[in-house]
Amino acid sequence: MNRKLKNEELNRISIEEFKSTAKTPIIIVLDNIRSLNNIGSVFRTADAFLIKAVYLCGITATPPHREIQKTALGATESVEWKYFKSTGEAIDLLKENDYKVAAIEQTENSTMLDQYPINENEKLAIVFGNEVKGVEQEVIDLSDSIIEIPQFGTKHSLNISVSVGVVVWELYRKFNP
Amino acid sequence: MNRKLKNEELNRISIEEFKSTAKTPIIIVLDNIRSLNNIGSVFRTADAFLIKAVYLCGITATPPHREIQKTALGATESVEWKYFKSTGEAIDLLKENDYKVAAIEQTENSTMLDQYPINENEKLAIVFGNEVKGVEQEVIDLSDSIIEIPQFGTKHSLNISVSVGVVVWELYRKFNP
Repeated sequence: MNRKLKNEELNRISIEEFKSTAKTPIIIVLDNIRSLNNIGSVFRTADAFLIKAVYLCGITATPPHREIQKTALGATESVEWKYFKSTGEAIDLLKENDYKVAAIEQTENSTMLDQYPINENEKLAIVFGNEVKGVEQEVIDLSDSIIEIPQFGTKHSLNISVSVGVVVWELYRKFNP
Repeated sequence: MNRKLKNEELNRISIEEFKSTAKTPIIIVLDNIRSLNNIGSVFRTADAFLIKAVYLCGITATPPHREIQKTALGATESVEWKYFKSTGEAIDLLKENDYKVAAIEQTENSTMLDQYPINENEKLAIVFGNEVKGVEQEVIDLSDSIIEIPQFGTKHSLNISVSVGVVVWELYRKFNP
């Protein structure tokens, strides 16, 4: 039998437990994301995979916000976040704190997601770009590496919250083999 | 240098090429999905990973629809889709056509996504449920297996289009090792 689990059977941790539990050494950086829907959805993904923090940059809106809450469903309470006027400022702070910075984009010398190597003691910031423009070239120039999600169809443009899900799932498993 | 690729450098295939190219033997089944945003986003993911078809069931809206188009960005033109009054009808047809049916849910005897085995000659339908209720118990009872996305935070409820992205990425790679 495959009885659906009730909410109280899901082994969900409390917000306090989330704050004190060991995190995946990943920070998600949102570079000028326009859609409040996408921002909320990213918080939920960050909660699910114990992501260390979400950095909201430029025009990216911040909680508390009714439209973010609609898709975040409370995950803005568990996941740590910071706001930066520019993505460049966020990257400066990340580098000071020994994070490697990887932009998620399609570039000349990108590494495909499945082939991206993770070192055990690494801390990694992953940068996702605007819905229309993608990650800005100047942010790419500041990054240590570029990760590309291989795509095979007519569009080559996954929704940004879908991209975050795919990349975080893959990297979570590389950090927890 | 990591110059961003221009659209014309992305090796995107045409709609005609998409129609005639070999597909990933996966059909995505949407069981009463409410959000037009999510439906459109699923089409874009299906386009990216050469998914065979999307089955839209129950209250799930169908193209052409302005709000689906906003997030599908044209992927409803490449990806094949069918509408079914009920998810049960879709599953009946899938089984007649030798598809194994896997529901994506959190149940008593679910298999974690990373451990889900794929046989080389298998055809697989993956069922995603309503934003609030998840996959209906009667649909779970009709399924051959249950796939669970392991989650570790306070919510255990990824956005449905994010779930589709994570599962399709993982299964695409299992079908193309």
